[in-house]
Amino acid sequence: MKDLQELFVHFLRDIYYAEKKIAKTLPKMARKAESADLKEAFESHLEETEGHIAKLETVFELLGLKARGVTCAAINGILEEGDEIISEAENGDTRDAGMIAAAQAVEHYEITRYGTLVAWAKTLGHKGAIAPLEEILDQEYAADKKLSSFAEKRLNEEAA
Amino acid sequence: MKDLQELFVHFLRDIYYAEKKIAKTLPKMARKAESADLKEAFESHLEETEGHIAKLETVFELLGLKARGVTCAAINGILEEGDEIISEAENGDTRDAGMIAAAQAVEHYEITRYGTLVAWAKTLGHKGAIAPLEEILDQEYAADKKLSSFAEKRLNEEAA
Repeated sequence: MKDLQELFVHFLRDIYYAEKKIAKTLPKMARKAESADLKEAFESHLEETEGHIAKLETVFELLGLKARGVTCAAINGILEEGDEIISEAENGDTRDAGMIAAAQAVEHYEITRYGTLVAWAKTLGHKGAIAPLEEILDQEYAADKKLSSFAEKRLNEEAA
Repeated sequence: MKDLQELFVHFLRDIYYAEKKIAKTLPKMARKAESADLKEAFESHLEETEGHIAKLETVFELLGLKARGVTCAAINGILEEGDEIISEAENGDTRDAGMIAAAQAVEHYEITRYGTLVAWAKTLGHKGAIAPLEEILDQEYAADKKLSSFAEKRLNEEAA
């Protein structure tokens, strides 16, 4: 990678791979969720994720590139860890708490990557790419916030 | 894992492993940094990281547990990705931009994990654990903010 432009394209491919991997994982998380609210949250985040994939494809198009991913070791590790928690939790409540934490780790990875991509798009003058990347970033922040409020609600119930 | 307490201990071991891995990686990042500011930031974050390890050891002690880590696939993936960027960058400027992004992915992983640990410590009534975990969380937020301001400064220079 010789400059910021190549780094930008690399990170775009990295997050494209990550979003596709997340889209494959969310239905499994929805199936395993004990709480109806959490199940619904995973299902609606799947719809958002499909929207992110489509938005990334428009960014690739804008840059005159074919949309393709590159293996993202980070998301693979984060999802592997989430999978481990899901399979090792011995009951629904524990699994839900672990899945919320796992999903928040995914959101934070996306938040940091999209934050970087927005900053780089601005520097590189890819004006058309800024708005779709910022829209995705806002949705990832909102998803993380929603998961925090679920976690808080569940923990308050557990503490009571 | 049968309940929130077991989940809490698992996540504590996971982040303990992660912090130790980060402490091993930071000197390498400092050596590879082109900008003196960034080099200094990695060096001072190493000192903070060593402080986090010591704080986690007090939390283990409070819980009557031996301090030990469990393999954290997430941090391994995040660091592997960072390593790839460092080795593939063809010049110092590109490497610095990539390293800032890689370090921010590490910070975000830690932010999400400590956020979860603080919430769980409160629910579980581990009063003595809350303050050290919150102190670490605050330092991770500050480290991420510092990296964002470095990135912004560098990008403004690059755009100019």
